[in-house]
Amino acid sequence: MNRNSLNFSGGPGALPESVLLQVQEAVIAVPEVGLSVLAISHRSDWFASIVAEVETNICKLLGLSGDYHVLLLQGGATQQFSMVPMTLLRGKTSAAEYLHTGYWSGKALPEARREGPVRVVWSGEASDFRRLPGDDELSFSADAPYIHYVSNETVEGLQFHRVLGRDDVPRVCDMSSDFLSRPCEAERFSLIYAHAQKNLGPAGVTVVLIRDALLKDAPENLPGFLDYPSQIEAHSNFNTPPVLAIYVVLLVTRWMMAEIGGVERMAELNRTKAELLYKLLDESQGFYRGRVEPQDRSMMNVTFNLANPEVENHFLAAATAAGFSGLSGHRAVGGVRASIYNALAIAAVEKLMGFMEDYQRSSDRAA
Amino acid sequence: MNRNSLNFSGGPGALPESVLLQVQEAVIAVPEVGLSVLAISHRSDWFASIVAEVETNICKLLGLSGDYHVLLLQGGATQQFSMVPMTLLRGKTSAAEYLHTGYWSGKALPEARREGPVRVVWSGEASDFRRLPGDDELSFSADAPYIHYVSNETVEGLQFHRVLGRDDVPRVCDMSSDFLSRPCEAERFSLIYAHAQKNLGPAGVTVVLIRDALLKDAPENLPGFLDYPSQIEAHSNFNTPPVLAIYVVLLVTRWMMAEIGGVERMAELNRTKAELLYKLLDESQGFYRGRVEPQDRSMMNVTFNLANPEVENHFLAAATAAGFSGLSGHRAVGGVRASIYNALAIAAVEKLMGFMEDYQRSSDRAA
Repeated sequence: MNRNSLNFSGGPGALPESVLLQVQEAVIAVPEVGLSVLAISHRSDWFASIVAEVETNICKLLGLSGDYHVLLLQGGATQQFSMVPMTLLRGKTSAAEYLHTGYWSGKALPEARREGPVRVVWSGEASDFRRLPGDDELSFSADAPYIHYVSNETVEGLQFHRVLGRDDVPRVCDMSSDFLSRPCEAERFSLIYAHAQKNLGPAGVTVVLIRDALLKDAPENLPGFLDYPSQIEAHSNFNTPPVLAIYVVLLVTRWMMAEIGGVERMAELNRTKAELLYKLLDESQGFYRGRVEPQDRSMMNVTFNLANPEVENHFLAAATAAGFSGLSGHRAVGGVRASIYNALAIAAVEKLMGFMEDYQRSSDRAA
Repeated sequence: MNRNSLNFSGGPGALPESVLLQVQEAVIAVPEVGLSVLAISHRSDWFASIVAEVETNICKLLGLSGDYHVLLLQGGATQQFSMVPMTLLRGKTSAAEYLHTGYWSGKALPEARREGPVRVVWSGEASDFRRLPGDDELSFSADAPYIHYVSNETVEGLQFHRVLGRDDVPRVCDMSSDFLSRPCEAERFSLIYAHAQKNLGPAGVTVVLIRDALLKDAPENLPGFLDYPSQIEAHSNFNTPPVLAIYVVLLVTRWMMAEIGGVERMAELNRTKAELLYKLLDESQGFYRGRVEPQDRSMMNVTFNLANPEVENHFLAAATAAGFSGLSGHRAVGGVRASIYNALAIAAVEKLMGFMEDYQRSSDRAA
């Protein structure tokens, strides 16, 4: 297996080899155009067709109707941390309801507070972000402008396996690290955003899904690039969009449809990978220690610790020497993190498991 | 010549072939890392070295000292239209001074007006943006927070061939379409911004040069991604940056230094290309009609008309059939535009000239 196929990075993450090969060709000449994808006009008919196909493919993959707009924006999830409250909270008196379940949901909070009142419905801070709340711990208000949560906390390795909130309050969800990794009941959300660099493409583009009705009271004085209606009207071409990154997202959606066979099948593969790794942790007799409570384990980011940071560093160095990359935990929490996004094959997980079993055996012998 | 080398698009524009070949390799494996550039962590040592080298190369190419910060941001020049007045105009009572010299400087105006008072020092609207102001038409105020202008109007084909403003007021300049195409006396500006997709790389990244002293009174309540000091502190890694686009900018700066030999030499080549084309227009006995007054002609975007739009369409179709691309004028003004950015070779201009001469001859014969 080549190095790309053993890239367990938390993001930017691995991409399918067939996509990389098509990108490689397109850097010199997009087949249907004959020009480098880096130098094709964003106002060309070709690029309009690319955007239209991405919009269609994402709606098809999620089974969404025409009530939703698909946007392809710059600025990452970080820009959405601001655009959401600029659009839905500015000038409001009732509080938006946020869950604080880890590093990334924590980053969204101060940006929302700049714009209006925020109520933290639940915080996992006291429990070191090692678990998510049960329904009995959550109470949502009917008059909130919206509820915001992060479906998968990449840093901690926590993932919700149900939809939160209430149907009479718009749900806004940061799905940056699990979008299109499983069916997500998208029609129950008013706004979903996901930067591309986990499951969809390279860094530099962010997918936003917005239910049309959400924008009926959108403010009219935002700068155009931060204004959802302006971006919708322009089909993400309000100003020059990141052409290459969007093209890669298209290739990935095509791959999901044609090679994988849709989101249900993607989820099965992702579940298989996650179950294999968690089983190894659980059966390691405490050598590999899962970071979070089992019911909240992420199918995207398998986080674990070894006996101590020194042992972890030794493990990470050995993994790097064996050809694996990206296994260091996020700088905020340390430890080890195996990110197993859509493009990471089961064979790569099996290879990692083989390495981990060998490593444990040789450590046990040395002890 | 292949199609990329005959790409006269207004942007995204042509890139050097040697750069495209390196990008092609990096899509599968960056030589010094062994991973796809689309899937390398933005927190890796490798990427930090890429950003550092871009910062160094740009300062070297422009002869800038340590007084300047180099940023690599998302959102294009459009985001800078907002970030500049958010940072320098919000809450001010004296007006920022803007020149309205064409399509793009016109786009900057409403974004500035959202933030504070704006005085339009000069507008070319009444003259259909066919010329730029002389010094005798300009009067700048000593108490303006800053003066803003666009050095090269891509749409109209107008370019300033001198530095405007006064030394006691910060100069802010949108150099999106001529940055690094010629020496620009960068040290006379407090802030320069330029999206990459003309002379520097693909769409998706924007270079911003900021003199440190400009930010001493920067507001402290902007969202981080719109806050220059936060971006400076993070070396453009405040949130996930567009890794591939930044890597391409690095390769282009290396190309300019090693293969071209610097900005002076780049300007000579650009001047040669422009002079060849303008000479052809001037000697065509009115068949090709330069759009703007000769003293304000752009060395980047050669705009011209033929007898009428019907003839122009025929010309453009013939040019496309002959292998040229991107020659249509911007939708705002129509006509023909030959964009001759850094990466476009003299040989491509000569080939276009040959085509234009043939086209004129055959039209004359048909008449």
